[in-house]
Amino acid sequence: MIRTVDWTEEGVVMLDQRKLPREELYPVFKTHEEVAQAIRQMVVRGAPAIGVAAAFGIALGVRNSKAASLEVLDRDFDSISSVICASRPTAINLFWAADQMKECYTRLRVSGVSRADIPGGLIEKAKALREADIAANRRMGMFGAELIQSEARILTHCNAGELATAGYGTALGVVYAAAEQGKNVSVYADETRPFLQGARLTAWELQRNGIPLTLITDNMAGHFMKAGRIDYVIVGADRIAANGDAANKIGTYGLAVLAREHRIPFFVVAPVSTLDLSLKDGDQIPIEERSGEEVTHLNGVAVAPAGVRVANPAFDVTPHRFISAIITDRGVAREPFVESLAVLIDRG
Amino acid sequence: MIRTVDWTEEGVVMLDQRKLPREELYPVFKTHEEVAQAIRQMVVRGAPAIGVAAAFGIALGVRNSKAASLEVLDRDFDSISSVICASRPTAINLFWAADQMKECYTRLRVSGVSRADIPGGLIEKAKALREADIAANRRMGMFGAELIQSEARILTHCNAGELATAGYGTALGVVYAAAEQGKNVSVYADETRPFLQGARLTAWELQRNGIPLTLITDNMAGHFMKAGRIDYVIVGADRIAANGDAANKIGTYGLAVLAREHRIPFFVVAPVSTLDLSLKDGDQIPIEERSGEEVTHLNGVAVAPAGVRVANPAFDVTPHRFISAIITDRGVAREPFVESLAVLIDRG
Repeated sequence: MIRTVDWTEEGVVMLDQRKLPREELYPVFKTHEEVAQAIRQMVVRGAPAIGVAAAFGIALGVRNSKAASLEVLDRDFDSISSVICASRPTAINLFWAADQMKECYTRLRVSGVSRADIPGGLIEKAKALREADIAANRRMGMFGAELIQSEARILTHCNAGELATAGYGTALGVVYAAAEQGKNVSVYADETRPFLQGARLTAWELQRNGIPLTLITDNMAGHFMKAGRIDYVIVGADRIAANGDAANKIGTYGLAVLAREHRIPFFVVAPVSTLDLSLKDGDQIPIEERSGEEVTHLNGVAVAPAGVRVANPAFDVTPHRFISAIITDRGVAREPFVESLAVLIDRG
Repeated sequence: MIRTVDWTEEGVVMLDQRKLPREELYPVFKTHEEVAQAIRQMVVRGAPAIGVAAAFGIALGVRNSKAASLEVLDRDFDSISSVICASRPTAINLFWAADQMKECYTRLRVSGVSRADIPGGLIEKAKALREADIAANRRMGMFGAELIQSEARILTHCNAGELATAGYGTALGVVYAAAEQGKNVSVYADETRPFLQGARLTAWELQRNGIPLTLITDNMAGHFMKAGRIDYVIVGADRIAANGDAANKIGTYGLAVLAREHRIPFFVVAPVSTLDLSLKDGDQIPIEERSGEEVTHLNGVAVAPAGVRVANPAFDVTPHRFISAIITDRGVAREPFVESLAVLIDRG
């Protein structure tokens, strides 16, 4: 299994995904500020992986805290958590993980754990969140694989695999589970401009795991759907509103429209930690706007004229009516999502 | 006006579009083989520009011919034309231009023109085709601009501008004509992977012509349509079948589906030389498959793991039912295209 995010005594170790597929490097981030910057700069990306990195980052910050008293540590905790939470706005898993760590911290404080033992408690919690993410992904894979026929050709966008999670993956977890069941699945991987997560990460990960794949540019998806070459579209999500509207990597919405036009099932795979039932619909999900340089420069070389105006929203929102099913770690939700998602949350 | 393709005494001069936007170079191609290779390697691209380059290439080949007798020249003509026609398969304008040159050659032969005067006659014909292309583009611009309201925000794909034609452009000709009429138009330009004609060429050309533009990646189009930021989609075409099905740069079909979903008019702009009424529908249009390296390598650097399987169809076909109007140099065709296009051809 790829070591996407993990804990070491020196700090948080993460596979530097900006360097893939050319180099497989595992730098260690030794402060919570470094972890926040790594999330912002996309050393690690993918909503569940960001959540785990955030949990480790908070634990790391508390371990590094010089606070002598518990009262000062309380203030440090909130400040550390704020730094981590300011890294990226769209993936709810980041805030969910921070909430989990805050709950753990409060529990440790209430139960009278000593100043010295608090960091260890938080590190254990972050490790448990990491293990829970892998277990959740395996469950989603199992639920999802039941929906997939053999010989299925699956289109995916961005990377929702091992590299986007603590391990196994969400959308690609379904692919792996289907393959483990002996279903002879293959993947069409969108390259996913501008950051090329499909070309750089999904292609690398699938190759490594022996899953047959064809790499395409994002704008080819419609052509291959029309040609009858795609049986399912399966993607991850960064935040899902109460009505099932799902934010995911820019381009997902276009695929959903194309999938419906071609009567191809469109599945979103995400753990319940991706649900944000505080939002009525997807219009309220904040969409991160990233630097235009991600579009205008490739490998540091300009591919567009200087001074050109660029838009670079990192995510879009797919309205629930385009989604055939949301596959979670607690089961499969279908329309009406506003009811089925609430049932899954209550099941927790 | 940009000198996309032109004649000089030394041969065919073309702006090397592979080098834009970083360098603006005008190499001269001195044999018809060099012209064919330049078309294949996309020094020049865009269906109408390919047509003009092909005409000049044939004239150049004949001018360079060592044939002493007219009978040998006849064979040389066919061989030269074959080399030019083998360069790229999808754009019908290439074959249309070769037919025009063949007709001219036959006319010169039948009318008893001397061996020495034949090259000059062909060069004049190619120059006339170039001028006719510019004039056709201005007419299309005029017809198209009538369909565009002021303050329109126009999404375009690939480059169907000055750089894709002898001058003025097809899809972008409509933009220029609307701007000349004082309509305050702006453009969203898809970057157009894998060759990045939008980022490299359309952005450069629009900037140079003072048209406000926003560069986006191909997969953002749906997001901006849903946000109400696009009023029209306007594209060119490489070949249009009798029923109105239109082949154009890969990704066009996806935009057409998205445009219909959002009730946005979708216009195809192309001269009648792009019509291929010998084909009943778009399924019969040959689609060029290009090297996978165009997808896996950017500026010579690999962005995907070695050995990955890649698909790289250069074009897709948009079924006529997604097309609101086909704007030609002889007027605007609407459904049923099988009738309206036939009327336009008869008008010639």
